[in-house]
Order: sequence, then structure tokens, then C-alpha cells
Amino acid sequence: MTYCVGLMLNEGLVFLSDTRTNAGLDNISRYRKMFTWEVPGERAIVALSAGNLAITQAVMSTLHEAIDDPETEPGNCILSAPSMFRVAELVGEAMQKVQLKYHDTLEQHHESSAASIMIGGQRKGGDQRLFLVYAAGNFIEATSDTPYLQIGEHKYGKPILDRVITPDTPIQDGVKAVLLSMDSTLRSNLSVGMPLDLAVLPDDACKFSEIRRIEAEDRGFRALSDAWSNALRDAFADMPDEHCDIAAE
Amino acid sequence: MTYCVGLMLNEGLVFLSDTRTNAGLDNISRYRKMFTWEVPGERAIVALSAGNLAITQAVMSTLHEAIDDPETEPGNCILSAPSMFRVAELVGEAMQKVQLKYHDTLEQHHESSAASIMIGGQRKGGDQRLFLVYAAGNFIEATSDTPYLQIGEHKYGKPILDRVITPDTPIQDGVKAVLLSMDSTLRSNLSVGMPLDLAVLPDDACKFSEIRRIEAEDRGFRALSDAWSNALRDAFADMPDEHCDIAAE
Repeated sequence: MTYCVGLMLNEGLVFLSDTRTNAGLDNISRYRKMFTWEVPGERAIVALSAGNLAITQAVMSTLHEAIDDPETEPGNCILSAPSMFRVAELVGEAMQKVQLKYHDTLEQHHESSAASIMIGGQRKGGDQRLFLVYAAGNFIEATSDTPYLQIGEHKYGKPILDRVITPDTPIQDGVKAVLLSMDSTLRSNLSVGMPLDLAVLPDDACKFSEIRRIEAEDRGFRALSDAWSNALRDAFADMPDEHCDIAAE
Repeated sequence: MTYCVGLMLNEGLVFLSDTRTNAGLDNISRYRKMFTWEVPGERAIVALSAGNLAITQAVMSTLHEAIDDPETEPGNCILSAPSMFRVAELVGEAMQKVQLKYHDTLEQHHESSAASIMIGGQRKGGDQRLFLVYAAGNFIEATSDTPYLQIGEHKYGKPILDRVITPDTPIQDGVKAVLLSMDSTLRSNLSVGMPLDLAVLPDDACKFSEIRRIEAEDRGFRALSDAWSNALRDAFADMPDEHCDIAAE
């Protein structure tokens, strides 16, 4: 499985993904699930993928081929598309094309073609936008009501996001929140694993302030993880007992 | 859906369940998912159910019919069975009988017969034990390595249990932990809903110290929930920023 999360904050976009894939519990590998494109000051885009690896890799290859092909029309390439909406459409169209090719044969082999791709970013003159493209090629967009999107094993890490993320959350707190959301997921689900990929795209910069792989032995991440564990245990120990003194109610 | 959790602590057993069932999002009802039996000082048992409601209700009815039937042999009734292991076997046998009757016709209607039942308790002279019975009638048992079991929507509420529950956890802290585990689930998943049912069975008492329904407006639960939210937000705000200052690493 996978866990990827994207935040759309007023200050900018924050993305985090793990790198574990598995075909059964006995076949675990490491694959990058975060892809970034940057024309500094002009356009910056991040894609995160979850689901059938052959499907999502084929979608990514389709997008890259369009970039590399000099005959691609501007509106059909994510690096020249006129809007982030068109970029999301291109991802959806690539997904539809790949699904058309493999969905039925995968089904014959009782394999799932389920896949999803989160795509977000900004082009100069436009707003930052964040989309989630489904296996059918359709997509939803993050809004200020729900300023984050998740794909893969999203449940473990959702409570912390629900509690702390609003559009006004500072970008630094957003980084903290996605790292803690990932930490909860890593602790409870073996199918999500280190290292992590982090990307931060400040609003209107069209240039990443951060693209970084966080390795298992990363001291900063381990310190954060330990500090959060201790803080949670302390908060738990400090919970006033009378609230649980059910008999006394 | 459902969320039920059971803890097996050295000091005793703690059980908590929600009461929401749904057949689609537009058909939400309230059903008790916790069932308790007590012969004070002799035997106390709790069952928690998740999955297809018709299946789990039929299993419960089967167990109750055996209790009510004066011709039931002692080993075939959960209130006279010689061990908690035999009690778990009886639940598994009832599950197999019900699945045999309905599994195929449910499948014809593309409905799932998936169901699981947690069963725990103690009979005088025996140890406290806690089991999870699957739809196939087989079951696993909680041990000191993993002193809790969950059924239904278990992912949201797992991180807090993984962090704080050990066999040495005092029973009062166990109550706190299951309430917070449920609180995280309630906040993130609409298919789990108030009111809650709580049961506490101290070790070697064979008598419940607590069986209580916690209503949505319960002041103690709401105070605990608010205190936990505040504590988490404070803990989050207090996380030292340098751990997230990824660029500085």
C-alpha cells in the first residue's frame, strides 16, 4: 500500500509520500511515489500516486512522453497547459487511456486496476490548486472547507489532520502535521514505509522551497516522532480522570 | 459500519462499542452491538458484533436460544461451558451455522455475509480471556503482546491504542484510552456514531464494575473529548519547530 497526503494552505502546498510498495506481504519494494516538475518562477507541479504500480507508472510515463515529444500541442502537456485544471484533465485522460488498455485483462487475472493520483501546483498568474484523480479519470479538488487530500492508507493519519489543518495553518505547521500524520500511519501499518518524500511549494513562488527525501535514520524526523510520542503520552496521562469516572456521572 | 474495541489488561477487561448501523448512507439506524451476561461471582461475558447485522443478530439469537433451552447440554451453553475457550468455540459454531444458512443466498444478491464477533470474559477459577471470532467460525485470542482487539472501523482509533496500551495499563487508563480511540473514530468517520456502550470487568471479580450507555450529550464524554482535542492542539503547537526545519538538517 501507500500513504500520500497533500495540503492546500493559504501559504502554500505541502506534499508527503512514503515509498513502500508490496505485491503481497512477502514482496516488498521501494518505489518513488512523488514526482515533481519545476520551471522556476513559471510553473511547479507535484504528482503523488497510489494503487496498482503498473497503472500509475504507465500514467506517469504517458505524461513524460508528452513532455518529451516536440510535436505535443501546448494544451496536451502538463508543462505548457494553460491551467492547473487542464493539468488535472491531462492526468485523467492518461489514466483513462491506461485503464482502457489494462482494466479488462487485469480483471481476468483477478487483479485490481484501482489507482489514484494526486496532482497539485501552480502556473504563473494562476492560483495554487490541488486535485485527486480517480481510476475513472474523473477528479475532485481540495477547497478551503477540506484543505487536504489523502490517497492510500488514509485512515490512521486522518484524525491529526482533522484536528489541526485549516487554510490558515502556517506552512511550517503544515509540514509538522503531515510528518505526524505519516508517523501515525507508519506505526500502525506495515504496508507504509520509510523513506519519505517531502515537497513544499510556497504560494505564488512557482518554485519549490523544499524537495527532500527523509531517510529512516533521519534525525529530525526521529526526534519529531519521539517528541510527539512523549507529548501524546503526557497529554494522555494528564487527562483529568474525572471525565472517565463513568460511575460518578 | 461499526467500531468496537476490547482491552485485556492485567487489572481486567474493558469493552466499548458504538451503536450505528447503516444500509447505505441514507439508511442509518441505532442497534446495540454489545451484549453482556453475568452470574455474579461465577461468570461474566461480553460479546461485541460487527458486520452484516442479520448475521450477527442470528448468531446472538442462537446463543440465547441455547441459554433458554432447558435441554441444552452444559458444554453447549455459554453460561455453563467449562471454559472461555469453549465459549469462543460456541460463538464460532453458531457463526458457522448461520453462515451455512445465508452465505450463498447473500452472495446471489451481491451482499456480503462478512461478520465478526469479539467475545471475552471469565468464569470462576479460570483466567480472563478475549477472542475475536471470524465469519468462518475460527478465532484468535488477545495475548500480552497485543492486549487489545478491534472490529469494524479500526484504523482511526488504532494509533492511540498502539501508543498507550500495555498489559500493565491501569483499568481506569484503559477506559480513558478506549474512549479516546472511539473519539478519534467518531470525528473522522460518519458510519460510527453515538451513543456508546461501555463495560468494565475487573480481573477475578466475575462481576461487572461498570455497564453503561454513554449518550451523545454525556457531559463526561464531551469534556474528555474536548480536553483531548485541546491537549493534542497544545502538544502540536509545542512541538519544537527545529525538528521540522527540514532545510536545516
